[in-house]
Amino acid sequence: MEKRHFVPDAQALLEAKERIEGHAHRTPVLRSRLLDAATGATVFLKAEGFQRGGAFKFRGACNAIFALPQSKLAAGVTTHSSGNHAQAVALAAAARGIRARVVMPNNAPAVKRQAVADYGAEIIDCGPTLADREAKVEEVIAQTGATLIHPYDNPFVIAGQATASMELLEEVPELDVLLAPVGGGGLLSGAALAAHHWAPKVQVIGAEPELANDAAEGLRLGRRLGPNAPVTIADGLRTALSDRTFSILQAHRVPIRTVSEAAIVEAMRFVWQRLNIVIEASSAVPVAVALEGDFKNKKVGIVLSGANVDLDAFFSSLAQ
Amino acid sequence: MEKRHFVPDAQALLEAKERIEGHAHRTPVLRSRLLDAATGATVFLKAEGFQRGGAFKFRGACNAIFALPQSKLAAGVTTHSSGNHAQAVALAAAARGIRARVVMPNNAPAVKRQAVADYGAEIIDCGPTLADREAKVEEVIAQTGATLIHPYDNPFVIAGQATASMELLEEVPELDVLLAPVGGGGLLSGAALAAHHWAPKVQVIGAEPELANDAAEGLRLGRRLGPNAPVTIADGLRTALSDRTFSILQAHRVPIRTVSEAAIVEAMRFVWQRLNIVIEASSAVPVAVALEGDFKNKKVGIVLSGANVDLDAFFSSLAQ
Repeated sequence: MEKRHFVPDAQALLEAKERIEGHAHRTPVLRSRLLDAATGATVFLKAEGFQRGGAFKFRGACNAIFALPQSKLAAGVTTHSSGNHAQAVALAAAARGIRARVVMPNNAPAVKRQAVADYGAEIIDCGPTLADREAKVEEVIAQTGATLIHPYDNPFVIAGQATASMELLEEVPELDVLLAPVGGGGLLSGAALAAHHWAPKVQVIGAEPELANDAAEGLRLGRRLGPNAPVTIADGLRTALSDRTFSILQAHRVPIRTVSEAAIVEAMRFVWQRLNIVIEASSAVPVAVALEGDFKNKKVGIVLSGANVDLDAFFSSLAQ
Repeated sequence: MEKRHFVPDAQALLEAKERIEGHAHRTPVLRSRLLDAATGATVFLKAEGFQRGGAFKFRGACNAIFALPQSKLAAGVTTHSSGNHAQAVALAAAARGIRARVVMPNNAPAVKRQAVADYGAEIIDCGPTLADREAKVEEVIAQTGATLIHPYDNPFVIAGQATASMELLEEVPELDVLLAPVGGGGLLSGAALAAHHWAPKVQVIGAEPELANDAAEGLRLGRRLGPNAPVTIADGLRTALSDRTFSILQAHRVPIRTVSEAAIVEAMRFVWQRLNIVIEASSAVPVAVALEGDFKNKKVGIVLSGANVDLDAFFSSLAQ
């Protein structure tokens, strides 16, 4: 890939915004006086749980898939994911009317497999490790010529994720701080790029579980750390940065704050109980940072990544 | 009480709407294409979980408390409740700056007692039965002169609850059907009165758990049935109609549909999982009716009563 395409530029972000319009929802920005009271800040929540597929991931997948040239459409797309990105690719491929082959580990939750299948994608089983998944995707690509839609190491995906922050900054231009969770770094890189181009005074801060602190540690050390199979409850944040997302976060000097598992659960509970919206644990990570951090009298934007939670345990206890 | 005050008239409803403005939230009307697909209808959800105190109950308490004459303010208000009405009275009394004494059974969940205390009300303990509660409230009234704010057998409370339906009918005047849950009957009576005055073509239907079907049975038999200690998961709907609410529902020929416990849990799960909002079991009852009923191609409004759910079991399993 040419160097100039390594990081999406302002034009690429604007094109992404236009490309996904009419496919992706413009999600609501929510307020809560209880959260304001608890943080001492004025908080604006970009609620990506209300995005199609229940997470911001649809933005990136949609931008990447609708940017495909005509010549690539017949062979369709592929990816590997056990989570939100799988659903996002399935949905976006369906929206463009092309075939999606999604490689999923055979131990992925039945409810997630079902959602991907319901969106019309073909599920291809693989073993549980990252190596298993990558090998299977290689095989699919070799056999079918499908285009890989990587969950974050793709400039079109990053530009798509940036649109969440672009919308929030458009709606609340006076923000002081913008918090986003960091796993593979697509969402946070997008936030950093959006702020850089359209709101350079906004301080972008990444939020990461202590138990999956490869971004915090890697940026501190100045070298990218590999995945270390973290066990955090924030399952969307178990992945590590890629060279691309690492270099974007490094270039924009994005600080990362980490929070404990207990703080993540407490923040998730706060939002469910007090704001009455369902958010996944990954979304609770930046909320936990806001609850712990010193943001008094600041205007703080938070990107809530999604709402895909396994409710089986809770509801089976109710139905008994 | 004079006969003409037994049922609030159109003027009383309009006054209620004006009286609570600026205190109560105008809650959002939500749409979901997944719910539309599942019901075959076009559904509009009036999301009272986003009301102050997390339930429609604040509307009625607020109207009743702000309608109190000056002479009654010093002695404050009282009520008995283990649920949403207790919080609503505490909040509304605080908003008017008067004292609230809330009689709560000593086995009420700690989280609900805490919420009432946080809103600044005084909690007065009593035994677990309805008789215990009523005796204790009588005692409080005798000792303090406090005004009783009954959770539903009060024309100001009914007029307050009606404002939820008035707002929904204002926003979606082309509704065919309006569904609301029925427990004590305040919310459903309010819906019937609002439709009668401003949208007489809208069919108002009550939604009740099979296990707490006193309204369905009583209206069928033509005589009010007393409480029978029902065990439904929809804890807000365990109360029975009063003479007043029974007579309103009877006069307006409001049909009641009942649903099983399994259907209630399934509907609750659908809304949490697919719409990503937290609703309490009582709110899921009209959703279950919509999912089971024959409302194809109809425009269906549903009042979601509230969002006060005990999340302890779920979150303690996460935090382990």
